[in-house]
Amino acid sequence: MSFNTFGRVFRFTTWGESHGPAIGAVVDGCPPGLGLSEDDIQPWLDRRRPGQSRFTTQRREPDAVRILSGVFEGLTTGAPISLVIDNVDARTKDYGESAPPYRPGHADYAYDMKYGHRDWRGGGRASARETAMRVAAGAVARLVVPEVTIRGYLVELGGDRIDGFDADEIGRNPFFCPDAAAAARWEGLVDAARKAGSSLGAVAECVATGVPAGWGAPVYGKLDADLAAAGMSINAVKGVEIGAGFGAARLSGEENGDAMRPSPHGGAPEFLSNHAGGVAGGISTGQPVVVRIAFKPTSSILTPVETIDAAGNAAEAVTKGRHDPCVGIRGVPVLEAMVALVLADHKLLHRAQCG
Amino acid sequence: MSFNTFGRVFRFTTWGESHGPAIGAVVDGCPPGLGLSEDDIQPWLDRRRPGQSRFTTQRREPDAVRILSGVFEGLTTGAPISLVIDNVDARTKDYGESAPPYRPGHADYAYDMKYGHRDWRGGGRASARETAMRVAAGAVARLVVPEVTIRGYLVELGGDRIDGFDADEIGRNPFFCPDAAAAARWEGLVDAARKAGSSLGAVAECVATGVPAGWGAPVYGKLDADLAAAGMSINAVKGVEIGAGFGAARLSGEENGDAMRPSPHGGAPEFLSNHAGGVAGGISTGQPVVVRIAFKPTSSILTPVETIDAAGNAAEAVTKGRHDPCVGIRGVPVLEAMVALVLADHKLLHRAQCG
Amino acid sequence: MSFNTFGRVFRFTTWGESHGPAIGAVVDGCPPGLGLSEDDIQPWLDRRRPGQSRFTTQRREPDAVRILSGVFEGLTTGAPISLVIDNVDARTKDYGESAPPYRPGHADYAYDMKYGHRDWRGGGRASARETAMRVAAGAVARLVVPEVTIRGYLVELGGDRIDGFDADEIGRNPFFCPDAAAAARWEGLVDAARKAGSSLGAVAECVATGVPAGWGAPVYGKLDADLAAAGMSINAVKGVEIGAGFGAARLSGEENGDAMRPSPHGGAPEFLSNHAGGVAGGISTGQPVVVRIAFKPTSSILTPVETIDAAGNAAEAVTKGRHDPCVGIRGVPVLEAMVALVLADHKLLHRAQCG
Amino acid sequence: MSFNTFGRVFRFTTWGESHGPAIGAVVDGCPPGLGLSEDDIQPWLDRRRPGQSRFTTQRREPDAVRILSGVFEGLTTGAPISLVIDNVDARTKDYGESAPPYRPGHADYAYDMKYGHRDWRGGGRASARETAMRVAAGAVARLVVPEVTIRGYLVELGGDRIDGFDADEIGRNPFFCPDAAAAARWEGLVDAARKAGSSLGAVAECVATGVPAGWGAPVYGKLDADLAAAGMSINAVKGVEIGAGFGAARLSGEENGDAMRPSPHGGAPEFLSNHAGGVAGGISTGQPVVVRIAFKPTSSILTPVETIDAAGNAAEAVTKGRHDPCVGIRGVPVLEAMVALVLADHKLLHRAQCG
Repeated sequence: MSFNTFGRVFRFTTWGESHGPAIGAVVDGCPPGLGLSEDDIQPWLDRRRPGQSRFTTQRREPDAVRILSGVFEGLTTGAPISLVIDNVDARTKDYGESAPPYRPGHADYAYDMKYGHRDWRGGGRASARETAMRVAAGAVARLVVPEVTIRGYLVELGGDRIDGFDADEIGRNPFFCPDAAAAARWEGLVDAARKAGSSLGAVAECVATGVPAGWGAPVYGKLDADLAAAGMSINAVKGVEIGAGFGAARLSGEENGDAMRPSPHGGAPEFLSNHAGGVAGGISTGQPVVVRIAFKPTSSILTPVETIDAAGNAAEAVTKGRHDPCVGIRGVPVLEAMVALVLADHKLLHRAQCG
Repeated sequence: MSFNTFGRVFRFTTWGESHGPAIGAVVDGCPPGLGLSEDDIQPWLDRRRPGQSRFTTQRREPDAVRILSGVFEGLTTGAPISLVIDNVDARTKDYGESAPPYRPGHADYAYDMKYGHRDWRGGGRASARETAMRVAAGAVARLVVPEVTIRGYLVELGGDRIDGFDADEIGRNPFFCPDAAAAARWEGLVDAARKAGSSLGAVAECVATGVPAGWGAPVYGKLDADLAAAGMSINAVKGVEIGAGFGAARLSGEENGDAMRPSPHGGAPEFLSNHAGGVAGGISTGQPVVVRIAFKPTSSILTPVETIDAAGNAAEAVTKGRHDPCVGIRGVPVLEAMVALVLADHKLLHRAQCG
Repeated sequence: MSFNTFGRVFRFTTWGESHGPAIGAVVDGCPPGLGLSEDDIQPWLDRRRPGQSRFTTQRREPDAVRILSGVFEGLTTGAPISLVIDNVDARTKDYGESAPPYRPGHADYAYDMKYGHRDWRGGGRASARETAMRVAAGAVARLVVPEVTIRGYLVELGGDRIDGFDADEIGRNPFFCPDAAAAARWEGLVDAARKAGSSLGAVAECVATGVPAGWGAPVYGKLDADLAAAGMSINAVKGVEIGAGFGAARLSGEENGDAMRPSPHGGAPEFLSNHAGGVAGGISTGQPVVVRIAFKPTSSILTPVETIDAAGNAAEAVTKGRHDPCVGIRGVPVLEAMVALVLADHKLLHRAQCG
Repeated sequence: MSFNTFGRVFRFTTWGESHGPAIGAVVDGCPPGLGLSEDDIQPWLDRRRPGQSRFTTQRREPDAVRILSGVFEGLTTGAPISLVIDNVDARTKDYGESAPPYRPGHADYAYDMKYGHRDWRGGGRASARETAMRVAAGAVARLVVPEVTIRGYLVELGGDRIDGFDADEIGRNPFFCPDAAAAARWEGLVDAARKAGSSLGAVAECVATGVPAGWGAPVYGKLDADLAAAGMSINAVKGVEIGAGFGAARLSGEENGDAMRPSPHGGAPEFLSNHAGGVAGGISTGQPVVVRIAFKPTSSILTPVETIDAAGNAAEAVTKGRHDPCVGIRGVPVLEAMVALVLADHKLLHRAQCG
């Protein structure tokens, strides 16, 4: 909806800063009677947790989630679900005692221009730490759409694209990479970036299978428009595609249409291709829903950058703190969570209008 | 908010089908005291109007807008503004007397799966005719943000990209193309597609200059997330980029950061680049806001396509009616309108919270 | 949601001024497949239509509604339903050529303080003419909740309360009065007020039977809170009660609780009373939902009233135009419509969350 | 907005059950730069805190609020403000080990009908304990409208109405009663009810002075409609009035209109009366905003009541736990908070649209 809430019927609100005492989310509108405990959420958080390989930030956060409301006798009650994670390893001293110069590429300057005041420790509210709560809320959303399987992975890192796809590979490397050969190459790329104090961008893809035809809505509550907002709301994301995405702009109408034929097995028709990415006219078609997002390289780099300070004077931005050389890696579980959250909302919206 | 309404404080709701008696929009939350008459809206509609060159559909709609409420003595009153356009050239007979087979790549199948019933004449509610009302509402939005200049154009058509940029060229060719040489090439491309009954995709870009730093908001009301939803909600759009977009994923952190320095003229700082596309952390930076969207080639092509009918039987989709060989062309004014609508909403939201 | 839209999932937006060319509503989120034509709406409008007896305003509006979208082959399609009524008998000349002094008790002054500009002809946007569109939208809402019977009536007029209740009487007198004796007395009261150029207040009650237990929601989407907002949003309403209302504050806990026992017929339990008015904790109990609203006497009276003009100078407000001596009478169909609209929304919201 | 969130621009979401580990609120959309610490909130909570006199429940909750986000260096940052209160004295054993029979007059039955499952300990989510978070959020809202003074009090308890009004008295008795004589009488009434295990209703009034003319909006975002929703959303409330309320229905138009004259001191005009309660056409007039709500007597009484259990069998409801003999008393700070929350939202909404 607005500001720090996302969703229409199935909604969540997040709060908390990178270096405050805790971060949290309130999930509202959740159907009652779903089995839910911390054990349903923690594994998803663990996938996103920092410090699990040398390729992500060395900040050590256990990210242990607690459920403070909305569950009774192991089942959701329909009341709002409050989820909290304590910040454990928030070394404020990494950030000095006063606001550092604006870090170009970060939100520092924009926040100050908007609010005239901000929590500058570790990015404050703009820190990607907030995305932990998306993953937590997304774990609840998954319970709302058990018919859907959601799988995210990186298809490109530092401009190096995968050549093959083996779903089993995704969990075997620290990059959520479905191509073993690419994963091996990416080790070298990320190591080099990390050692140089540089950073790399990435492209993540997420496929949701099992979405029935009919979720979504014209004209401004389109499933793909909501997925676009969800994807673009993730820190460092600069582009979103559905299905063939920008590639569709280079196809002819003959190439791009997804022809249909009756299924030999009855039931839903067979589609001969999926350029649409499972969404037509803002409504799911029953094909896999395919979303792709582009992460920029983080601006937290060792090379000093020309900038200004809050007084408007010339200054240099020098990165301290512990950072991810490629934020896109840990962005994969976040993308999955956002897709789950959008789908849960649209499932409920669909049955609201259509029974 | 949802379904057929867009925006939070400055909102608009559209209604109407391609072949119904009329289409309309209700613009709500508009500030009072703005000079507004049909003359402020009609020129923008005329830019989108079909039938103006051989490169767009030959449907002849004058698209004459009427204001039915919300304006008194030439000024907006703060009450909802009702805008209506009568459908004049809606040849229902082009569409036969019963629902044709589902047209692959169109929303026919998805709508039927959702609603079990749809107005199939000319795409009904899913028709791009709805975008006329976005342009009308966008004309009102422009009055809310007079400090902003919004300019859209095509940067790519049928996979052929512009080489140069001359803003003055945009109005001189039927493609909103800022490169005369490319425009000349595109004539050939579109003519060929039109004659072959085929269709082409395109990429449009829109730049908003004059947006002050501070519009937008973390975390789910981000300016770029709203622009992404706005862009993706336009018919036939499959991708949205802000600033460097997917290209950012191929840059290093050193290349991508937009360094700042004090302006020699005082005031807002000087940015040395604009990979961010004018948005950081969901908030405008004062740089030009840059949005890019990809249009797929329309599925309305002469070549029959394998499909099914509503009974699930194998069928062929054969396009009748009058169609655009490249919907991206007339999409340019629509993109501009959506950008204006998002910016107007965020201007008002910003002053709500920050005074 | 806000300003000129009401509802969350089943929503409607109204537009138009008393003396503009037309008024209208857009109903969004309506389930598909409902049989709908103007004939489903017009009878409800006719109940509210002015000029039907000497006890209401003599403005002669046929209030003929047209459906401009959202219906195909006689069925709702799930797309927004645009409803329009042309203003036929809008005698602007009754209102002179410039803004008259602020009429105390009307919204004139408040509107000018807010907007600095307003359509002062006949109350403009603040005119109760807007309520025609509530009745039209409410007629659509009734189709969404066919299991519910909604009946409104006046229980008090000019301080004179009914003594008996006979549902069949409601349609037999011009006051929607369920008590023939009271109706006879009210004739005298209203005639006297009309002749004196005075006005009277009234209390209307609306009972919705057939609402199943379970609609509504804690804590801020409560069914009774939405009914309160709906009721208070009607022009001239100054109070809302659910069930025993203010009277409950004078009961003891023993008197007020609605004891339950198993029904001898099985199924839903039997309640021994209904002080709750069918809502507990914001959720329907299965008992009849009972809402009561108080209409103030309109401030459009013949006696000149001390006031100021827009320049702040002392002035006299003198009522011209044609007015209802008791706006509460024609408020009955409006209350019914608002109750239908709230219930339709909550039915859909309930199945969104709870299936 | 919906379910557990209230407000449009200035919004808050509450979570938590009576006997869970904690309750909380997230306040979103708060302007930046406001001085805020726990000390700004705690005093308001203390006014509502149970166990302060023999006239309220003996549950002993310190209700110590913690701010977990949204404040940095003592100032609000514009980010969401997370407020948490731990539940300390939640004696679950008072409630046994399994769901007791439905308590008539409480939300037990309605919740089960909606959700099929509920936290029945102490009312769970339906407990008035949730209102502590309204008071906490309301304390933040007060900072947003420093120009407004909000004062609530009881005007009636157990059917016994105040005769005089002395603002200084309000803080001198445990009933927020502005009439010392009435307060003395009420001691007897409440003592008697408490000893009898009975309960009493009450009517609270809240006056907000300093609200400038122009807040609010037609037609569905009316200030009074939002106040009505806010009031009716408070536990045990069954009626809401603005200004003269139901009494207005018994006045003539001549009596009810609030005549105006130029102020001898310049500036805003002088009103000769305030039957409107400071709101006309949904917009504030500059006069004091007057809201009145009716609390029913709580159904938690010692006398066993005929009811059914979850299996549908006949049963008796016997109240255990510690309860307020008159929930209206502690409802006064809650009403004040809700009025503050509505006004803060409307102040921001007003400047959004009107600058």
